[in-house]
Amino acid sequence: MTQMTRRALLAGSAALAASPALASAPIVDTQAPGFYRYKVGDYELTQLSDGAATFPMPDNFVTNVSEDRAIAEAARLYLAPRGEVTVPFNPVLINTGNKLILIDTGYGPNVSPFVGHLPASLAAAGMSPEQIDTVIISHIHPDHTNGLHTKEGALAFPNAEILMPEKDWAFWMSAENAAKADDPVSKAYFANARKTLTDLVDHVGTYGWDKEVAPGVMSIATPGHTPGHTSFAVASGKDRIFVQSDVTNIPAFFLRHPDWHVMYDHDPELAQRTRHRFYDMAAVEKALVVGYHFPFPSLGHVEKNNTGYRLVPANWSTTV
Amino acid sequence: MTQMTRRALLAGSAALAASPALASAPIVDTQAPGFYRYKVGDYELTQLSDGAATFPMPDNFVTNVSEDRAIAEAARLYLAPRGEVTVPFNPVLINTGNKLILIDTGYGPNVSPFVGHLPASLAAAGMSPEQIDTVIISHIHPDHTNGLHTKEGALAFPNAEILMPEKDWAFWMSAENAAKADDPVSKAYFANARKTLTDLVDHVGTYGWDKEVAPGVMSIATPGHTPGHTSFAVASGKDRIFVQSDVTNIPAFFLRHPDWHVMYDHDPELAQRTRHRFYDMAAVEKALVVGYHFPFPSLGHVEKNNTGYRLVPANWSTTV
Repeated sequence: MTQMTRRALLAGSAALAASPALASAPIVDTQAPGFYRYKVGDYELTQLSDGAATFPMPDNFVTNVSEDRAIAEAARLYLAPRGEVTVPFNPVLINTGNKLILIDTGYGPNVSPFVGHLPASLAAAGMSPEQIDTVIISHIHPDHTNGLHTKEGALAFPNAEILMPEKDWAFWMSAENAAKADDPVSKAYFANARKTLTDLVDHVGTYGWDKEVAPGVMSIATPGHTPGHTSFAVASGKDRIFVQSDVTNIPAFFLRHPDWHVMYDHDPELAQRTRHRFYDMAAVEKALVVGYHFPFPSLGHVEKNNTGYRLVPANWSTTV
Repeated sequence: MTQMTRRALLAGSAALAASPALASAPIVDTQAPGFYRYKVGDYELTQLSDGAATFPMPDNFVTNVSEDRAIAEAARLYLAPRGEVTVPFNPVLINTGNKLILIDTGYGPNVSPFVGHLPASLAAAGMSPEQIDTVIISHIHPDHTNGLHTKEGALAFPNAEILMPEKDWAFWMSAENAAKADDPVSKAYFANARKTLTDLVDHVGTYGWDKEVAPGVMSIATPGHTPGHTSFAVASGKDRIFVQSDVTNIPAFFLRHPDWHVMYDHDPELAQRTRHRFYDMAAVEKALVVGYHFPFPSLGHVEKNNTGYRLVPANWSTTV
């Protein structure tokens, strides 16, 4: 900060331009806009960053592996700073040419300064929330659903139909299920669903699996992370990609080690089987996979290796 | 294009807002701004995209491997479209707080619409060419030096000192060496140097190896790609990274296979030895490596494997 203060003191004085030793430009300290465009057939897709959360690795972040092993693995993969974990949040926008379809909405405005950036990323990409025709929710967790509302509690995408996976909608909105929840993670999820989605009961539609939920967007059953957790195939022309949603949390851990369980999985054994089934399919098809928690721009190909899978991040293209 | 025409026809009519079936937003078709910021100690660095060139893989792009093998390897690594190769160009800007230092300048304005974007990326990052204090050239090849001039032939960075590696400056500006060149690649490089750098003869400074070329920026001898080809260590506080320049062209080929020779290497055997030496050092130090031809934002860690090296791309950070 020293150099900014010094520069500010001198700004406007003739000394600034005359002295080559002074700061030429202030330290900026803000990142580039969080959007990235690419084509799938005739469709234009945009990855949108909602931000990322960095926190000390809790000892149960990976529930079936020791904290020491998880921290060592993070270090081996150059994830810094040591002992912390960063989880990014990246919704995807699909422009079919006729429809703007958003899959998942980010954390919304009330959590921390490091998340809730979807509206800013959307604006940087040149679009407004009013233009969105359809919001598809992959599963009912706060980092996917809480962006449905603005800070003032209004609908964040006022002209959009909102589609929820029917199994998740039935599960998380059930007072009976909520009463039965006994672990703190599930309790928090039930409470958040009740608090943030109750006003939408007459507004949302639901969808099943193996359906064309929106033009070119097929729903794929990938339960385990939540009972109704859904992935998608997006197809246009000869191209087809997969939007995995949360088949894994961060790929450095759970894609490389599909038998590791993240603390947020509702049914860890089912989530593990889903990971194998989904990544085996993606690897065989050599399809591009969009991962909500993959590092921005959250695109890659999945390969099988001896112990699990490897993510090959897509190369950034300077054209669309 | 159909949907844009249809939308344009209807724009301004009441029908547009009334009909939910119409395009919500046009296909945009332009990529996000090409800059990415990160910290090295107290320094703020910015990767700046100059664009990328995509061309059919020439049969001598890899001079000591068959075209078929190179094309198969590209496909195995999901580089699309099949049979083509994309080479990105990513200069790096270093803000020490007191000095703005640019390493390499991109292709300049006169080559193609797909390159010469450094000024646009710099503007997107909130900075202007007039603010640059020092331009360090890593080696004298057109994709690194031609951005020294504007379209009109003026100095692109009018207030900057320009520093060239002394061995390259002596080699490429020598009429005697130019007369001896017998291969088309070298002839083109000599011609370009003469054409684009002659007006700078009284303007540039030169630097040697193992010197602090600018504050915190040490020059490292990495010859082979050109006689004076130079890499850099950038250090601030306890942090140190390497700016490799062109120790490899695209890492998918030449970092994975350090014994493959790219057609642009002046002394391929020396370039090969340099690759091993440089990446052995980077792997041992576990240092972040900036690669001019790495996919944007062109940052990663290098690991040894059985047959060569593996690039582990750095995860995009949503904060600086």
